[in-house]
Amino acid sequence: MERPTRLAAALLGLTLLGAPALHADSPARTPTPKELLDKSSAQEWRTPDPQNLLLMQLPQGKVVIELAPDFTPLHVANIRTLVREHYFDNMAVVRVQDNFVTQWGDPEDDDKGDKAKLKPLGSAKATLPPEYTRPMDAKLPFTALPDGDVYAPEVGFSEGFPVARDKASGQAWLTHCYGMVGVGRDIDPQTGNGSSLYAVIGQAPRGLDRNLAVVGRVLQGMEFLSGLPRGTGPLGFYEKPEQRLSIRSAQLVSELAPAQRPKIEVLRTDSATFAALIDAKRNRRDDFYRNPAGKIDLCSINIPVREAKASP
Amino acid sequence: MERPTRLAAALLGLTLLGAPALHADSPARTPTPKELLDKSSAQEWRTPDPQNLLLMQLPQGKVVIELAPDFTPLHVANIRTLVREHYFDNMAVVRVQDNFVTQWGDPEDDDKGDKAKLKPLGSAKATLPPEYTRPMDAKLPFTALPDGDVYAPEVGFSEGFPVARDKASGQAWLTHCYGMVGVGRDIDPQTGNGSSLYAVIGQAPRGLDRNLAVVGRVLQGMEFLSGLPRGTGPLGFYEKPEQRLSIRSAQLVSELAPAQRPKIEVLRTDSATFAALIDAKRNRRDDFYRNPAGKIDLCSINIPVREAKASP
Repeated sequence: MERPTRLAAALLGLTLLGAPALHADSPARTPTPKELLDKSSAQEWRTPDPQNLLLMQLPQGKVVIELAPDFTPLHVANIRTLVREHYFDNMAVVRVQDNFVTQWGDPEDDDKGDKAKLKPLGSAKATLPPEYTRPMDAKLPFTALPDGDVYAPEVGFSEGFPVARDKASGQAWLTHCYGMVGVGRDIDPQTGNGSSLYAVIGQAPRGLDRNLAVVGRVLQGMEFLSGLPRGTGPLGFYEKPEQRLSIRSAQLVSELAPAQRPKIEVLRTDSATFAALIDAKRNRRDDFYRNPAGKIDLCSINIPVREAKASP
Repeated sequence: MERPTRLAAALLGLTLLGAPALHADSPARTPTPKELLDKSSAQEWRTPDPQNLLLMQLPQGKVVIELAPDFTPLHVANIRTLVREHYFDNMAVVRVQDNFVTQWGDPEDDDKGDKAKLKPLGSAKATLPPEYTRPMDAKLPFTALPDGDVYAPEVGFSEGFPVARDKASGQAWLTHCYGMVGVGRDIDPQTGNGSSLYAVIGQAPRGLDRNLAVVGRVLQGMEFLSGLPRGTGPLGFYEKPEQRLSIRSAQLVSELAPAQRPKIEVLRTDSATFAALIDAKRNRRDDFYRNPAGKIDLCSINIPVREAKASP
């Protein structure tokens, strides 16, 4: 739940974690996210395909990224190849630019680095077609948002990802919302191959939409990418090698033994509970919010992720 | 400049820092921010009123906040009183909630704290009228943005701050963009007094607009508020006292000797150069951007701040 409160624990008990004390007699009160999620059915949650889950071990903890092969299939396939061949093991977080992105990859991949020291890409391709948009397709579920968007004719969610669409061009694309993961590249649009990835850590840089390949979303551990000291070099690159954060390993969850796999469920973005969460956030009716916005922006919506319950 | 690039230093030389090598022969190329700022005139920059500058010393460095008395005069006056009486000295950053806010104030100001230990507010008022909006006024400059907004009928900039307006109600208000500073409060709207402040560190939580008093914007040192480990307690509060960040002091710049004052200038938001920066960001025409957005969101615009040149 999101609001700046002075007396956190008091409010927690009253409204934020859904205890009914203050408002139980008020039928107009907006349900809390916890109340809505507590009422959700098992069918409203999905277990991401383990082939689409990238598990990255940072010194502070695990980062889990869900890949989006229906939007950027060639890039996702290349990233899977890189990961299977341990490309990212002992690579590093090299850049944290405030209000923009955290980026990771080969520390030698800049002008100061020694090109001869670049880690080989192995079986992965060095160049790929851009994949900045994809054709709209009736088979791809799309849950539209009602309040419009500054950047695109239509926005909503497909398969758990924030998406923009343009019926005029017939194209759809993943948007650069907080926590989305994209592929860094050089000036040539073919130069993105997935060996350098970034996650959005600030206000959604929507001007990047349709200019870079977006390959997924951080499901868990976002705080380990966003809560880092900002780089002081140009573009937020870390100036000293010791400032970089080492990536211990990156693995596909499908390559892990079942017992080692993170047990994660994601609320379906075409579920009734997700719609209810959006409605509740658009129309906050409680004693704290005096002026409910009645609107919501695509990138202001969090898609709930939870630990799956252990199998009985 | 903002884009996820693989070969940072190479790109820097070519386009990001404005060297003309690659594009000097291309009249259609979008000028870089540096090129635009280099051409700006002295009159396009303003020196904020020292009475509106709050200088906060954190262990990592200085944070400078510009207060906005034309929008929230009573809150700003109360904050000035608190600061003059050293209220924030030895207070702490108590909360960092990912993709939301960093909040600071009295660590005892929660249910686990000992109310008897709360730092007295001194001459400052304990309660204030809400000040969530103010009447529109032709005397207040307003630079409108052209691309609309999900939350408000009209958005733009006044006196260096992002603002929304509604002609139907005749009201204007500061918006919760990245780096904006607001006043935490309890459920009662009168309970905000400025002793607990927060800065936005993620996607603009515009649903808070018109529900909290926004008092200013971080001009410098934002990275010291945003690049902190996230709190692991409910709402992102730090669970252990030793995780909190101590505020060494907070002072009004007007109380400092001239030699000690930070020399800061802010680009006027009603200047031609600011308009050119917005236009350039809306319509990126260069070799990296293949699909310029042609649009821009209020909270995606950075207002340039620079160190003033020394007086001759």
